[in-house]
Amino acid sequence: MSLQLFFAPGACSFVPHAMLELAGVPFEPMMVKLHKGEQRSPEYLAMNPRGQVPVLVDDGEVITQIVAILLHLDAKFPQAGILPASGVARTRALSTLAWMNNTVHPTFTHVFMPQKFTDDEGAQKIIRAFAANSYKGLLGEIEAMAAKASPWLCGEAPCALDAYALTLLRWGGYAGIDPTTLPATWTLVQRFAALPAVARVIERERLQLNVYQPAA
Amino acid sequence: MSLQLFFAPGACSFVPHAMLELAGVPFEPMMVKLHKGEQRSPEYLAMNPRGQVPVLVDDGEVITQIVAILLHLDAKFPQAGILPASGVARTRALSTLAWMNNTVHPTFTHVFMPQKFTDDEGAQKIIRAFAANSYKGLLGEIEAMAAKASPWLCGEAPCALDAYALTLLRWGGYAGIDPTTLPATWTLVQRFAALPAVARVIERERLQLNVYQPAA
Repeated sequence: MSLQLFFAPGACSFVPHAMLELAGVPFEPMMVKLHKGEQRSPEYLAMNPRGQVPVLVDDGEVITQIVAILLHLDAKFPQAGILPASGVARTRALSTLAWMNNTVHPTFTHVFMPQKFTDDEGAQKIIRAFAANSYKGLLGEIEAMAAKASPWLCGEAPCALDAYALTLLRWGGYAGIDPTTLPATWTLVQRFAALPAVARVIERERLQLNVYQPAA
Repeated sequence: MSLQLFFAPGACSFVPHAMLELAGVPFEPMMVKLHKGEQRSPEYLAMNPRGQVPVLVDDGEVITQIVAILLHLDAKFPQAGILPASGVARTRALSTLAWMNNTVHPTFTHVFMPQKFTDDEGAQKIIRAFAANSYKGLLGEIEAMAAKASPWLCGEAPCALDAYALTLLRWGGYAGIDPTTLPATWTLVQRFAALPAVARVIERERLQLNVYQPAA
């Protein structure tokens, strides 16, 4: 068996990266330097024509999309608790996972890369400002979930939602949102980051949890 | 056991609607008239505070998000073939499902509801035009998948991806894309629509498959 995870520091690939390390299964972490455009190299595009991270390669099979990667790993390592095993708990976790993936993440994309939605620089500024405000509202929804976490978002054990919450709250800093203004999420995220396996991933990605900078 | 599906005609709720009918399981179809704002009624918001369709109610448990609804139904009715049962086929289908849900669908939202991304009417026009072009490229990716379908997107039996392809191609008409210019998808979609169970759903939602209108 061979598992490789292609990730970029600070990107949403953190989610499967953290869950693989938490699962304690052997895998090869493959760093992709987005600022050097490595995701657009011929080799990378031959593997993933969409030029995105994460990519999981399982014995030669290329798997894209966080939701698919997590469900693949969950089926392969059911003891890892990537998601609740069954029943209502699993369905609720999948619902939140899908929402983080199709709503919260794309809203941040409008803040971080408004050029993906228009070539017009004036419109880009307008899109970014509107999205930063929407993003704040969405983090507020996560805050309500974190306030009810007992103690993790899926219940007794850390799961993929906690990893996603860390990524999304961290991105908030780039959207001008001070993470400490969302205290339940901030506490949860710091607790998650302190787990030894997660700490190794944060070290490997060289992540700073709070990237918020107050306006000068 | 009681299952209710809240859907809006022509919305992405078509996907679980078609799969429930194909599965041949009893459920209560609950139509939500978006043009009358029924998704913002106090009753609806009490059930789903995000005011979106689809919602599946399974014995009182409210389930949102297409991906979660499909996986819930797939676990409950494994014989229905909503997704391939296991292995690489399942992982690949989940990857495409996630991509349709987090990339193709939100791109159409920019065409159909640019007001979700800015209050500025000028910027809305710019966003819509850019997104219509992006959407054409994404339907091109689906066309490449449809060209390799054997005969369905998941293989021998119709699955959730075929239902999603129908919805996404149909929406293309509103984005100024003639579905007949994507012949493999158009053939697949017409074949899917002709399945008796799917035809009942199309009748219930009163859908026209080709909504494209050439510029006058």
